[in-house]
Amino acid sequence: MRGSAKADVFAMLAHPIGHAKSPGMFNALFEERGLDSLMMPITCAPGEFDTLWAGLTALSNLRGVIISIPYKVPALAKAETAHPRAARVGAANILRRLPSGGWEADNFDGFGFVLAMKKAGHTIAGQRVLQVGAGGAGCSIAHCLAEEGATSLTISDIDENRAKTLAAAVQAAFPACQVSAGSNDPAGMSLVVNATPVGMKPTDPLPLPVEALRPGMIVADIIMEPAETRLLAEARARGCQVQPGQPMMDCQMQGMADFLDVDRKNRNV
Amino acid sequence: MRGSAKADVFAMLAHPIGHAKSPGMFNALFEERGLDSLMMPITCAPGEFDTLWAGLTALSNLRGVIISIPYKVPALAKAETAHPRAARVGAANILRRLPSGGWEADNFDGFGFVLAMKKAGHTIAGQRVLQVGAGGAGCSIAHCLAEEGATSLTISDIDENRAKTLAAAVQAAFPACQVSAGSNDPAGMSLVVNATPVGMKPTDPLPLPVEALRPGMIVADIIMEPAETRLLAEARARGCQVQPGQPMMDCQMQGMADFLDVDRKNRNV
Repeated sequence: MRGSAKADVFAMLAHPIGHAKSPGMFNALFEERGLDSLMMPITCAPGEFDTLWAGLTALSNLRGVIISIPYKVPALAKAETAHPRAARVGAANILRRLPSGGWEADNFDGFGFVLAMKKAGHTIAGQRVLQVGAGGAGCSIAHCLAEEGATSLTISDIDENRAKTLAAAVQAAFPACQVSAGSNDPAGMSLVVNATPVGMKPTDPLPLPVEALRPGMIVADIIMEPAETRLLAEARARGCQVQPGQPMMDCQMQGMADFLDVDRKNRNV
Repeated sequence: MRGSAKADVFAMLAHPIGHAKSPGMFNALFEERGLDSLMMPITCAPGEFDTLWAGLTALSNLRGVIISIPYKVPALAKAETAHPRAARVGAANILRRLPSGGWEADNFDGFGFVLAMKKAGHTIAGQRVLQVGAGGAGCSIAHCLAEEGATSLTISDIDENRAKTLAAAVQAAFPACQVSAGSNDPAGMSLVVNATPVGMKPTDPLPLPVEALRPGMIVADIIMEPAETRLLAEARARGCQVQPGQPMMDCQMQGMADFLDVDRKNRNV
């Protein structure tokens, strides 16, 4: 039975909160591992974020907070210290309590994507990558792809300026990778990543021209539902290797559970 | 499985929090009833209460907060409206969210005691009561005993001024009951209540001179552990009817669960 007065307490913050996956997944994980721990789904109106965060900081038995839209950027600003992969993208998707009572930030979006690719047997180093989508998750994934040694990275977004801004930031952080903003044409690429929500709805268009996909290309989608998006189905039919979104979430969960030290393996967390 | 992103969220606040019973009892109740709800045990340092409360108020999916020591008095001050039984004692042990976003306070300490007595077949009306202990729980119980029609109520406390202050407050609120501060001698009483923590530890003295207990008297203790305190054992040996602390907690739980509308029976809570 979880939730005694001695329970380890975590929260997951988003606005709105109703569609977030993390609370259910973490509470299931706590139950599986026999932990007396709770993850509370919480939400607040955007104008109340500073007030809420002051309250969460005062809540001295709260050990960590998972952050989603629209609070990933302001949450980073609340951290005393941040992992470079969070600092680089200017956004946190998790904070854990420091012994000082303050917070340490990290970002596991790109980490989860890269780890899931590796577990599926794909190497990032040496790939010529097209990434469609330069939003929050895309920003973290692009930095991680460049960090892992992708040869080139072309970033496409319906907002061209957003693609250019992200490309410039990734290029500055990782000079060894050839980074540019460009079209969503996968011709000549070895790895194609959909980092947009396009494909969640049955009526969505395809995020990129699939006729240019060729056998042997790896095509990855960060969408979890449906498990096989139209993009992935089209890619599979054209002989591509496909990578669905669920393993990224599973790897991200693992990274976050370790960061939060839910099993209390490390004395200093 | 409790704790999805759509979960109903409650909290239980005390400092320290580790020994509170409510979180475990409520989480067990949620599980029994198949509710996707969580009660989070929370704590903060006394100087942080105002900051914490502002944060809890900003946390818009938080439906209610159970309050224990040392926050029962300051929590009442955060309420827009309060039940008379909370307002009279100047302390809240629970707040629920109002449609305005603010809070409504109540206090179920005395309510639980009175309801448990009734369920055990004891009538309060007409009793000559000795109550030992004029602290937080005692304050709430004394008011409820007078409200239920006790003929007389003698309040005893090691802090005489505290006993006098409580007696005056109860007398003013319920003129029909003869209320006074006095000694802890049960001679001539029909109902004797221990509302102190004296008896929790095996080495504790008795809270009152048991040699004056007589067959037929009702002797009640608010202590839950041990289930039978030395006071109750001595009373039983002298032919008294005894009332242990657990039923009071059970009745208080029921009152609080109804107040919080954990089953969402009422649309307007």
